[in-house]
Amino acid sequence: MKRTILSAAIALISGVAAIGAAIAADDEPIQPIRPAANINLGMVELGKKLYFDPRLSKSGFISCNSCHNLSMGGTDNIPTSIGDKWQEGPINSPTVLNSSLNLAQFWDGRAADLKEQAAGPIANPGEMAFTHTLALGVIESIPAYVREFKQVFGKDKITIDEVTAAIAEFEKTLVTPNSRFDQWLLGNKEALTKKELDGYKLFKDSGCIACHNGEAIGGNSFQKMGIVEPYKGKMPDGRAAVTGDDADRFNFKVPTLRNVELTYPYFHDGAANTLTEAVDIMGRLQLGKKFTKDENAKVVAFLKTLTGDQPSFTLPILPPSTDKTPRPTPFGK
Amino acid sequence: MKRTILSAAIALISGVAAIGAAIAADDEPIQPIRPAANINLGMVELGKKLYFDPRLSKSGFISCNSCHNLSMGGTDNIPTSIGDKWQEGPINSPTVLNSSLNLAQFWDGRAADLKEQAAGPIANPGEMAFTHTLALGVIESIPAYVREFKQVFGKDKITIDEVTAAIAEFEKTLVTPNSRFDQWLLGNKEALTKKELDGYKLFKDSGCIACHNGEAIGGNSFQKMGIVEPYKGKMPDGRAAVTGDDADRFNFKVPTLRNVELTYPYFHDGAANTLTEAVDIMGRLQLGKKFTKDENAKVVAFLKTLTGDQPSFTLPILPPSTDKTPRPTPFGK
Repeated sequence: MKRTILSAAIALISGVAAIGAAIAADDEPIQPIRPAANINLGMVELGKKLYFDPRLSKSGFISCNSCHNLSMGGTDNIPTSIGDKWQEGPINSPTVLNSSLNLAQFWDGRAADLKEQAAGPIANPGEMAFTHTLALGVIESIPAYVREFKQVFGKDKITIDEVTAAIAEFEKTLVTPNSRFDQWLLGNKEALTKKELDGYKLFKDSGCIACHNGEAIGGNSFQKMGIVEPYKGKMPDGRAAVTGDDADRFNFKVPTLRNVELTYPYFHDGAANTLTEAVDIMGRLQLGKKFTKDENAKVVAFLKTLTGDQPSFTLPILPPSTDKTPRPTPFGK
Repeated sequence: MKRTILSAAIALISGVAAIGAAIAADDEPIQPIRPAANINLGMVELGKKLYFDPRLSKSGFISCNSCHNLSMGGTDNIPTSIGDKWQEGPINSPTVLNSSLNLAQFWDGRAADLKEQAAGPIANPGEMAFTHTLALGVIESIPAYVREFKQVFGKDKITIDEVTAAIAEFEKTLVTPNSRFDQWLLGNKEALTKKELDGYKLFKDSGCIACHNGEAIGGNSFQKMGIVEPYKGKMPDGRAAVTGDDADRFNFKVPTLRNVELTYPYFHDGAANTLTEAVDIMGRLQLGKKFTKDENAKVVAFLKTLTGDQPSFTLPILPPSTDKTPRPTPFGK
C-alpha cells in the first residue's frame, strides 16, 4: 500500500516535470528532437544492411554510407560527393541525420520522402550508376537477403519499393536527441554556458530563426539563397528545377542545423569550410547583417550545442554473394 | 560442502573434455582460431577510429575499411581495389581478418607485420595517395584525437608509429573463432555434415593441406603460383620483388582460407569468382589433379565451414575536424 502511494506520488511529480519541460520547450521556436517511434525493427535491420551494401552500385564500391557516412555526421565532409569512376557530384551531400524531419528530400525537394530519395542515387549515373533492375538482380541472388525480405514484407517478390522502404525505415532511426541545447529546452538550465545562450539570443534576434526553426532547426521550408546580396558561388536552379516556376530559382531546402559541427563543409556547394565563415556569409546575404567577431563566435558556440547523440549500432555483416550473383564492374564499361 | 564437491567434479569433467578437445585438434594439421589475447583496449578503440577514418587519405573518401570492409569479410569483394581518383589497383586486397596470423603482410610479404603494413596504403599514390606528414597534420588538428593519443601512448608527440601501432592493435582483434570447422576440431563431432567431412578428407589427401594448414589455413608460407601448370592470368613478380631472388618469381604468400566464402573473388588477381572455379584451378595448377564435379563440391562444402564469428562492434563515431584541420582534396591536383 505504502509503495503504491509512493509510486503514485513519483508518477505525479514526473508528470509535473514533464509538463514543465513541455511548456519550456513550447515557448521556444525550436523543439527538442524526439527519439524515433513506430519503427518496424525487422525492416530497420534489413535497411541497415542495404544502407551499408556497396553491391547496390555498379562498381561494388559505393554504398549509401559512402556519402552519408554515419561515422561522420551522416555526410562525407567533402564539398561535393565522389560518384562512380570518381565523378564530381554537382551538389553537397546533405546529412542523413534527422532527415525524416525534412518536408521533402534533396536540396531542391524533388523527392517527397526518404523512400523516394533512396531510389535516386542507386540509379543516378553520376552516383552509384546502377539500375533498379540490376540492384534487384543482386539482392535476389543472395538467399539470406531473400529470406529476410520475405520475413519482413511477407511476400516472395522483391521490388525496388521494398528495398527503398527498408532503407527509409532504417533512416528514420537516425535521429539525434539529447543535444545540450535540447537538454536546456527540456528544463536543464545548466546545460548551456552564458556564451552559448547569448549566441542563441543573437540567433533569434538577428532573424536566423526565421528559416532555421522547428525540431530540425531547418528542413521545413524552401528559401532563396542570397536574399539581400547574391551568392557568389556555384548556383544551380534549385527548387525551380522541380516546380518550373522562375520565382523558385536559387531556392533550396533550408538545411537542418542539427549536428552542424559535424556536417561541414556548408551550403549547397560545400564552399564554406567553417561555421565562422558560414555564419558570416549567412548574416550578410540573408539578413543584411555583419556579425562582429564576438557575435559570430557566440552564434557558433550556440550552433555547437546542437550535436546530439549519434546513431549507435553494431556494424552490419552483409550476407555473401553466391555463384549466381552478378559481379560488380568497377573498371568495366 | 556438497556444492564444493559438485563444482570440483564439474571442473574435472570440463578439464577432461578440454584435454580431449586439445588432443583432437593436435591430431589435425589445422588448429582452431583462438580469440585475441593481450590486447590494449584503449589502443584498439583508437585504432578502430583510425581504421574507419577517410581523412587519412588525400581525397577524404578512402579509409582502411574501404578496401578491407569489415561488413564483407575484411575485403572489398572486387578483383583489384579502387584507389585515389578511381585508379585500378595492381593486386587483390587480401582480407584483414586473421591477418595477425600471417608470417608477413601483403601478397609479396614486403611488410613484416600489421604495423608496417598499415603505413603502406596511406602513402601509396595509387591507394590513399596521402603522405604520413599530411595524415599527422590532420590528426594533430583534432583535439579529441590528440587527447586520445596522449591517453593511450602517454606522450604528447604523435608520429606515424603511434598511428600504425593503434591500427595494428585494432586489427589484432579481427580474428574469427568459432567456425563450424573449429567446433568440430574442438570435439563437437555433430558440427560438420558427412559431405563437409568428406571434403576435408579430400582437402588433406589431395595435398591442399601442404600449403593451407595451421591456425589460419594458410598465411604461413610463400609458394609458387603455378607449380604443375603455369597460371594464365596476370603475373606480378611476387616474392622476388622483395628478395631480388629469381627463384622467388611468382611466389606469393599463401592466402588464408578462413572465411573464404566471404572473401571472393580469389587469387592475387581476383580472377576466380567462385570457390568452385578456385578449387578447380588450384587442383590442376598446384597439384596436377582434376577434381571431379562431386569432389569439387565436397571440398567447397568443407571450405564453407571455415566462416567464423565476424567482428562485432559499434560503428565508431569520428571526432570532427576543426577550423584548423587541412581539408581533403578529392578533385584537386
